[in-house]
Amino acid sequence: MTMHQLNTRFKFFTLSSNPKLAAELAEQLECAAGKCSVSRFSDGEIQINIEENVRGCEVYVVQSTSAPVNEHLMELLIMIDALKRSSVGVINVVIPYFGYGRQDRKARSREPITAKLIANILERAGANRVLTLDFHTAQTQGFFDIPVEHLTGIPVLTEYFSHKELTDMVVIAPHNGSIGRARKMADILHAPLALVDKRKDELSGAETLSVIGDVTNKTAIIVDDLIDTATTITVAAQAVAENGAASIYACSTHPIFTGNAIEKIESSPIKELVVTNTVHIPEEKLIPKITAISVAPLLAEAIDRIHNEKAVSPLFELSNK
Amino acid sequence: MTMHQLNTRFKFFTLSSNPKLAAELAEQLECAAGKCSVSRFSDGEIQINIEENVRGCEVYVVQSTSAPVNEHLMELLIMIDALKRSSVGVINVVIPYFGYGRQDRKARSREPITAKLIANILERAGANRVLTLDFHTAQTQGFFDIPVEHLTGIPVLTEYFSHKELTDMVVIAPHNGSIGRARKMADILHAPLALVDKRKDELSGAETLSVIGDVTNKTAIIVDDLIDTATTITVAAQAVAENGAASIYACSTHPIFTGNAIEKIESSPIKELVVTNTVHIPEEKLIPKITAISVAPLLAEAIDRIHNEKAVSPLFELSNK
Amino acid sequence: MTMHQLNTRFKFFTLSSNPKLAAELAEQLECAAGKCSVSRFSDGEIQINIEENVRGCEVYVVQSTSAPVNEHLMELLIMIDALKRSSVGVINVVIPYFGYGRQDRKARSREPITAKLIANILERAGANRVLTLDFHTAQTQGFFDIPVEHLTGIPVLTEYFSHKELTDMVVIAPHNGSIGRARKMADILHAPLALVDKRKDELSGAETLSVIGDVTNKTAIIVDDLIDTATTITVAAQAVAENGAASIYACSTHPIFTGNAIEKIESSPIKELVVTNTVHIPEEKLIPKITAISVAPLLAEAIDRIHNEKAVSPLFELSNK
Amino acid sequence: MTMHQLNTRFKFFTLSSNPKLAAELAEQLECAAGKCSVSRFSDGEIQINIEENVRGCEVYVVQSTSAPVNEHLMELLIMIDALKRSSVGVINVVIPYFGYGRQDRKARSREPITAKLIANILERAGANRVLTLDFHTAQTQGFFDIPVEHLTGIPVLTEYFSHKELTDMVVIAPHNGSIGRARKMADILHAPLALVDKRKDELSGAETLSVIGDVTNKTAIIVDDLIDTATTITVAAQAVAENGAASIYACSTHPIFTGNAIEKIESSPIKELVVTNTVHIPEEKLIPKITAISVAPLLAEAIDRIHNEKAVSPLFELSNK
Amino acid sequence: MTMHQLNTRFKFFTLSSNPKLAAELAEQLECAAGKCSVSRFSDGEIQINIEENVRGCEVYVVQSTSAPVNEHLMELLIMIDALKRSSVGVINVVIPYFGYGRQDRKARSREPITAKLIANILERAGANRVLTLDFHTAQTQGFFDIPVEHLTGIPVLTEYFSHKELTDMVVIAPHNGSIGRARKMADILHAPLALVDKRKDELSGAETLSVIGDVTNKTAIIVDDLIDTATTITVAAQAVAENGAASIYACSTHPIFTGNAIEKIESSPIKELVVTNTVHIPEEKLIPKITAISVAPLLAEAIDRIHNEKAVSPLFELSNK
Amino acid sequence: MTMHQLNTRFKFFTLSSNPKLAAELAEQLECAAGKCSVSRFSDGEIQINIEENVRGCEVYVVQSTSAPVNEHLMELLIMIDALKRSSVGVINVVIPYFGYGRQDRKARSREPITAKLIANILERAGANRVLTLDFHTAQTQGFFDIPVEHLTGIPVLTEYFSHKELTDMVVIAPHNGSIGRARKMADILHAPLALVDKRKDELSGAETLSVIGDVTNKTAIIVDDLIDTATTITVAAQAVAENGAASIYACSTHPIFTGNAIEKIESSPIKELVVTNTVHIPEEKLIPKITAISVAPLLAEAIDRIHNEKAVSPLFELSNK
Repeated sequence: MTMHQLNTRFKFFTLSSNPKLAAELAEQLECAAGKCSVSRFSDGEIQINIEENVRGCEVYVVQSTSAPVNEHLMELLIMIDALKRSSVGVINVVIPYFGYGRQDRKARSREPITAKLIANILERAGANRVLTLDFHTAQTQGFFDIPVEHLTGIPVLTEYFSHKELTDMVVIAPHNGSIGRARKMADILHAPLALVDKRKDELSGAETLSVIGDVTNKTAIIVDDLIDTATTITVAAQAVAENGAASIYACSTHPIFTGNAIEKIESSPIKELVVTNTVHIPEEKLIPKITAISVAPLLAEAIDRIHNEKAVSPLFELSNK
Repeated sequence: MTMHQLNTRFKFFTLSSNPKLAAELAEQLECAAGKCSVSRFSDGEIQINIEENVRGCEVYVVQSTSAPVNEHLMELLIMIDALKRSSVGVINVVIPYFGYGRQDRKARSREPITAKLIANILERAGANRVLTLDFHTAQTQGFFDIPVEHLTGIPVLTEYFSHKELTDMVVIAPHNGSIGRARKMADILHAPLALVDKRKDELSGAETLSVIGDVTNKTAIIVDDLIDTATTITVAAQAVAENGAASIYACSTHPIFTGNAIEKIESSPIKELVVTNTVHIPEEKLIPKITAISVAPLLAEAIDRIHNEKAVSPLFELSNK
Repeated sequence: MTMHQLNTRFKFFTLSSNPKLAAELAEQLECAAGKCSVSRFSDGEIQINIEENVRGCEVYVVQSTSAPVNEHLMELLIMIDALKRSSVGVINVVIPYFGYGRQDRKARSREPITAKLIANILERAGANRVLTLDFHTAQTQGFFDIPVEHLTGIPVLTEYFSHKELTDMVVIAPHNGSIGRARKMADILHAPLALVDKRKDELSGAETLSVIGDVTNKTAIIVDDLIDTATTITVAAQAVAENGAASIYACSTHPIFTGNAIEKIESSPIKELVVTNTVHIPEEKLIPKITAISVAPLLAEAIDRIHNEKAVSPLFELSNK
Repeated sequence: MTMHQLNTRFKFFTLSSNPKLAAELAEQLECAAGKCSVSRFSDGEIQINIEENVRGCEVYVVQSTSAPVNEHLMELLIMIDALKRSSVGVINVVIPYFGYGRQDRKARSREPITAKLIANILERAGANRVLTLDFHTAQTQGFFDIPVEHLTGIPVLTEYFSHKELTDMVVIAPHNGSIGRARKMADILHAPLALVDKRKDELSGAETLSVIGDVTNKTAIIVDDLIDTATTITVAAQAVAENGAASIYACSTHPIFTGNAIEKIESSPIKELVVTNTVHIPEEKLIPKITAISVAPLLAEAIDRIHNEKAVSPLFELSNK
Repeated sequence: MTMHQLNTRFKFFTLSSNPKLAAELAEQLECAAGKCSVSRFSDGEIQINIEENVRGCEVYVVQSTSAPVNEHLMELLIMIDALKRSSVGVINVVIPYFGYGRQDRKARSREPITAKLIANILERAGANRVLTLDFHTAQTQGFFDIPVEHLTGIPVLTEYFSHKELTDMVVIAPHNGSIGRARKMADILHAPLALVDKRKDELSGAETLSVIGDVTNKTAIIVDDLIDTATTITVAAQAVAENGAASIYACSTHPIFTGNAIEKIESSPIKELVVTNTVHIPEEKLIPKITAISVAPLLAEAIDRIHNEKAVSPLFELSNK
Repeated sequence: MTMHQLNTRFKFFTLSSNPKLAAELAEQLECAAGKCSVSRFSDGEIQINIEENVRGCEVYVVQSTSAPVNEHLMELLIMIDALKRSSVGVINVVIPYFGYGRQDRKARSREPITAKLIANILERAGANRVLTLDFHTAQTQGFFDIPVEHLTGIPVLTEYFSHKELTDMVVIAPHNGSIGRARKMADILHAPLALVDKRKDELSGAETLSVIGDVTNKTAIIVDDLIDTATTITVAAQAVAENGAASIYACSTHPIFTGNAIEKIESSPIKELVVTNTVHIPEEKLIPKITAISVAPLLAEAIDRIHNEKAVSPLFELSNK
């Protein structure tokens, strides 16, 4: 892809959450990232300096609100404020991983809906458009009144498995909330679906897992939107293994990997875990079992289409060759 | 329950969507509905007259945005405008069934998110709080910036089945989107879960249903948030029957019942369908198979708690005696 | 007129209120209407699909909020939401007839001001500009904070009468509210003015009509902004006839025609009624007495001027050749 | 009336436009105006000091935006800002005469709608409710989204004429825009209506006045919302006199009286002009022909009703004993 | 400078506060001011007519909110409303002197923060960008959420003194609030700093001035942002003189000059006072001691840079050749 | 002070920034802090649970936005969101130290104004009032449109020195920005003022400090709003010492103390540094030289006055016994 067709008023900035992805994006977009420094005062306050003229530009700021989530979020808000006061034309916020996305409803009384709060303050700061991948629930799009380009990493992940030429596959949702994603992946792979169901005994409080659907002697692919502590996915893998699966793969768009996630994955029956790079994965966490696929081509294509006012919809369509 | 403890500044109004539920509510609240007329000009424009002083009052307006949804929604918006301009203190909007709730995300490119639009214009008109039952997805709470009291009809429906003393139950989600609700119900009933899964063949476009989970010789209870054309629930019942269920019950909070829903239910293997009265059910649709349980006590209790500034949270808790 | 000078980013969509006017507009603008489907779910909820890329476009959506007013209004709001979320550049809302326009003040205590509510929710949904004809009162322009292009059908209607070469004309306001419009028309025709005055007896409640001004042996032209039940205009015609007018014509921009309006017009002393097509007139209502003049050329010229950033003001000026 | 029933958190402030009316209001309300100074810095900037605690109070600020309109308006805006930042409970803005009210629509291209601008900035500054008399057009109510209590001086003026026991009356609208007001007054007085119509010759530009309706040998009462230069009302009086009226009275809510208005009134055929004191009338303008009736009782009653949450509607009703 | 590079959609309007500066600006920009009339109705209401098409234009409106401040401010607000309703593209408000700037904090309880109120209502009216010189405090930038281009007259004033080749200079802050400005000027001139400190005796209330820092036998240059009554600067000059300064100059961006400011300056030890023309100086106030330097080149350069989307930052940098 | 007069609807919550100050406040207010837990998910996302009913309450949330500033700020925002959605009556945000306060203007091109951003997002989240101490500049009050109660620690600090009965004092502003604070303190102590001035050589970039004003043989008290790295205050102390001061004290409201601030203070000529506890001071930083005075009584008195709607102004007045 070339950005030669982009006019000179396109600017692309990156903050500190994922410099590697940003570098790949810059390469894809064939343009250097805008000059801008992000530093900390001695008391931890963020200082941002935009070091080139941005007046009237269509700006794209890339920042995952991954851990440390509050730092990355504030960087983004302050950058938006700086851009707004610098008379830019349009502020596009590219958030490969949208943190706080799981706090999207009141599950109990007097809880915040932090995902909505984040949407509100991004808009208040001055964001004009959001480009992101795989919100925890699709309804999060509606938390914004500005346009949201909501991409998904599922086709990228699925395509990887397609090329492996696996047979007798079954796609597994490791919990209720991922059944929609599992259904989409199963559709592309022409595979059946199964679900790992967690049941809590009201008296003892004990949780029991059961696998609903047939996995015996099958090649299981577990799919989730994110892997945080890796408890959910490894426990699901164990249950699937106990139910007789022949081999177990797993995939997920967002590799959060907190706590001893890597140890759990390492010691789990998962043969290979495929993720994307929406969240930066430190070198030491990239164990052989884990394959990371870059979403830079997908994001670059989306940015190119937005900037040139072409439809982004083809990127939503599931590819299955 | 008595509303004697409510001070004189409480007012309760009802619009035209569900007069029967409103009457039950008035009885529960032991107060007459406020005087207000809703009529149509000859060209169909809505005319609303509030016929008593409401200055400074804490007002509750009851209106399901059920079919005809656009009429009922506009009635509600116009009523809110009239109340706002009449210097009421607080406008509480009681929406037992929230229409357009299924349009809560962009499933395809260039779609509206109508549920968010509705939230936006309710707030713009002047609503201060929303009291509702079973949004299509819980995330819809976050579409609002005003407080939302989000009740659920699941405990009411579950309690009904508890009293029937059924044995060897399995709770069925008739489609992916209802699996969370089915899980909750199964938790209360200490029952396992099953799922009716719809798979679309990409080449032929043909859809095939499969039941994931074991239903053989069990008492199946299918649960959904709403029944519209009744296609989903009756097709699921058929699949469950074909998979050997001993008997099949169904339940749902919102009885939309459009098209030939009643015929489908009548001729389906469903033994009994339990619904609430969030949407008015015309006499002729109340066939013997259908049992309707009133949510008036639940709503009245919530209104009483809100008005007297007591926690509403106990109403969210699942009851299971 | 050719739209060749319009650049490729112009898009023109039509909703369901007045397809015939929209077709004429498309012809005038020499461009096809954008692809977009408007349908209803079985429960009456509106479903809108925009079927072509609109990113960055200057969009014009044509929709009269005529009866069924709430349906047409909701279609428009949902379309605006869909466009906003699709990253269009500018949303121009073309509303040939603006429904609820008569509810533009609190005539009695605790009434809504529905026209303002409509303005508020159109802006909240995301409209950027309004193009309309003959609000019920000119002050409705001020209900909006976005630019309003407020055209009038009076010159078009007046020109028709000018070509008839009538003599000894008098222009009649059929009620107080239309006296401004009557004055404008009388100015163009160099004719005097008369007024049909309705007086209500406070004790008996009986209403008596009187014609203020001289109509004897004159060619009377009654003018109003809209004809709804046709009671006002036919009763006025009767009073003018009884006061000795030689012949009676009538005209109005918006042909609402509800109830038995057509019968009333048919049996009234009105010789010819001239209207525009801001509201769709079904074939069976187009009786020989009624002449309908298209506002498509006027709207097309306005759209052309807006799109090409030329002054719209010449279209406000009264023409009288 | 006593304000004893008002609780202690009621505060009443007056700015500089009409201290006499404010003093009457204070007397009616049986409470002293709050301590507050309004002064000017040497460069004309307004300085406001609120000199008593207003925290949590329901405040009423009285200020007509009469000439010098920009000074009086800015005083009001600055006072609202000061109150808002002082944590008052509710800011009620009492504007007996609302300046810029005539700029309520775009009469020509590229005109402002200043009345809407004023409404917008009053709300932006922090006003919570408006209490006013006789907007130029009733639609101005809809320019606000906060509650507007829109009183009218017509009943007060009409009552004065009722007590005069005049016979064979005719109520005259001195121009098109006042026909609604004239109709209301005529209804109370059981009198017919006439209209002074201004016709402009398109070629010569000359204006000719004609009286539409019968005034011969009648007692004419001309009614308008405001008298500014007095040209309209005195020219109308002259026309009515030339058409044979026996005697001519005039009335108006707002006595603006600019330029040589008083001279024109003095030398006109008007026998008596009745106005209210919404705008302060300097002693020297109160010539014998002019009678000024205080609206303080009406405003005090409205404030009392608002503060005690009683309906204000009885004050809208026309009295005619 | 030529504006040839500006495209045709640039428009420049001037209101009534400073026609001389506006004329200089027009000359610098090599373009005529847009046609627009500002007049007063007989009651003092402002009437604005924009007399040429502005649709889609990038508009610059020049108006200092100098005395009479409320008149000038309302002119500006009404002009913004007119432009907004005329579908302009961008409204740039050029306010060489921003009135009410000193009321930028609550110095005492229950004071307004009028500078913030002004910012709020300018934004509410529809302003999109502000271009100004020397706010009273730099923090006023943050009162706006729209971009503010905050220029300073200090370099222009300093350059004038640089050319005088004065020796042994000391820069004087005439009060605490100007010490930042004095520091900047001292930096450019490589001169030391001194401060005139006002100390109030708590018991007697008497104020005593003292000069902090060494001024003996030096060439003192007193610098302030504005000169209003001239008391501060002339009293400071007197104190500096008494402390043995060899000669005393003074400078200030904004020449407000109210009361007997000119007499005070005339009779003070100030040898020459250098100001800019952000506020119009009437001929009779331009006494020989006062030198006025035009900011038209600075403003024109800024407008040119904004319009052509070049960085404005070079204009902030201090020049010192 | 007793809170017995406070009605039962008062609630006081504390977040994690300064539990010691919060405990003192609770003691002063004679009420327990509300039950609420603040925890972190494994990925660092903040989780807040309000564990008691708050419906309709007047809530005070205490949180300094001190380091880690972004964590503390996000806690506060999320707490506000949770409270808003829980139908509290009024949300009072008590921010003893307001972080990011120094970023209150654009000092260079394309900088953010982060203090305004923070104000904007606190309001957007739902805060209704702010109670704080010593903003970096008083103008920050105007960044908010909600009421701000802006207390100062200067009287508390000054009173401490008053009791020491020091003689021949001089109050020192350690940099330009603190001269206003120094002037206030000097007024209370009847002491003269001096200033430490920093001058930067444009060519070499070297900075030289000079003391403006006489400090020889005096008891110097250096005053600043905050001490961060302690460079400014210790360098100033050194300069004052070199200029012959007899003894040197220092004071500041906010003890940020980052980097090796304590070492610098320890080794500086400062004899005693007096601070408040708006920011939590860890035990190990409380070296003997440092005295910390609690602002809990001041904050408690302010909360008591706000809650009981008494004037807060007496707390702004400088006390000097």
